[in-house]
Amino acid sequence: MTIHRLSVYTRCLLQLEEDGVKTISSQEMADRFNLNSAQVRKDLAYFGEFGVRGIGYYVAGLKAELQRILGLDRQWPVVLIGFGNLGSALFHYKGFGRQGFRIAAIVDDDPGKVAREVESVPVVASRDLAREVRARGIQIAIVAVPADAAQPVTDQLVGAGIRAILNFAPARLKVPREVRLQNVDLSIELETLSFYLAQGSR
Amino acid sequence: MTIHRLSVYTRCLLQLEEDGVKTISSQEMADRFNLNSAQVRKDLAYFGEFGVRGIGYYVAGLKAELQRILGLDRQWPVVLIGFGNLGSALFHYKGFGRQGFRIAAIVDDDPGKVAREVESVPVVASRDLAREVRARGIQIAIVAVPADAAQPVTDQLVGAGIRAILNFAPARLKVPREVRLQNVDLSIELETLSFYLAQGSR
Repeated sequence: MTIHRLSVYTRCLLQLEEDGVKTISSQEMADRFNLNSAQVRKDLAYFGEFGVRGIGYYVAGLKAELQRILGLDRQWPVVLIGFGNLGSALFHYKGFGRQGFRIAAIVDDDPGKVAREVESVPVVASRDLAREVRARGIQIAIVAVPADAAQPVTDQLVGAGIRAILNFAPARLKVPREVRLQNVDLSIELETLSFYLAQGSR
Repeated sequence: MTIHRLSVYTRCLLQLEEDGVKTISSQEMADRFNLNSAQVRKDLAYFGEFGVRGIGYYVAGLKAELQRILGLDRQWPVVLIGFGNLGSALFHYKGFGRQGFRIAAIVDDDPGKVAREVESVPVVASRDLAREVRARGIQIAIVAVPADAAQPVTDQLVGAGIRAILNFAPARLKVPREVRLQNVDLSIELETLSFYLAQGSR
């Protein structure tokens, strides 16, 4: 099962919980959230222990188990590298906090930004990156700098002991095998749309 | 095959073309881009006509075919809704233009932003949205407004004839069946990382 689907199911279960739903069958979940029902049935079968024959799954129990698997049963302090337009947008992005990701430090070398705080989060220069990462026990970094600045700062992050990097810079970063790198390519999402439009126009 | 994987292969082939590679086997492609080789072999088998037995695939031919399928063999004018931090970041995001997506109009109701141009792209108020969309033949919209503003502007987009929406707002939007909606949830990418970190710490 892809990790991505676990995240999607977790969101569905959170929504169901908010709506006061206690149990749900895989078929109902597929219908309600417009998912592939065969896939949902197969995926959730892994979590049979949270199911009740003829009824479905306990929403609260299944949600808690998926959150545990995804590491969302704890808080993750995150360092944000780059505080330009994209960095600011990510800092204010509500979705991170909701899942337990908390931006604990911001790194930017712009003299107009360094040494101040944004909503109580310190902005430090890259020479202080390692110190902040260690002092705050940070394992995850978000890279939101221009392409040409991305590899040098990534090398610094690796040196500081960062174990996972979410990269928004349009650059192919090199990291050692033990560091997890996830690249976000926003244009891929647009291509899904152009695919459908192109199919429709043929 | 998922559309997402078509996008990934297209990027690999573009890179190979830049590097002057003329033909490649599925195994080489998997090795070089760190992909699942069984998956690559299976996926590319659909495009057998671009293959040469014992050699692999013609990079240029296969790339052009994937681009055609993804609708990337043309220009897509796009309307960007919202010009705050995220909207600005998306406007300056280089990846869109490279794939043929061109932001042709920006919609924002902030009086300080309306009626000016950003790099020759007009910023208009939402009351002029429909006019711009029709005049420019725009079919795709990117929604980058706060959650509470997302549904009203989406209704306007649908009314203006928009056929596909990429939504960054943390809101569950309702659109008619014939309009394609793609939601971007940036925290899902972070969860892939926390999943691996959580596994490692058990």
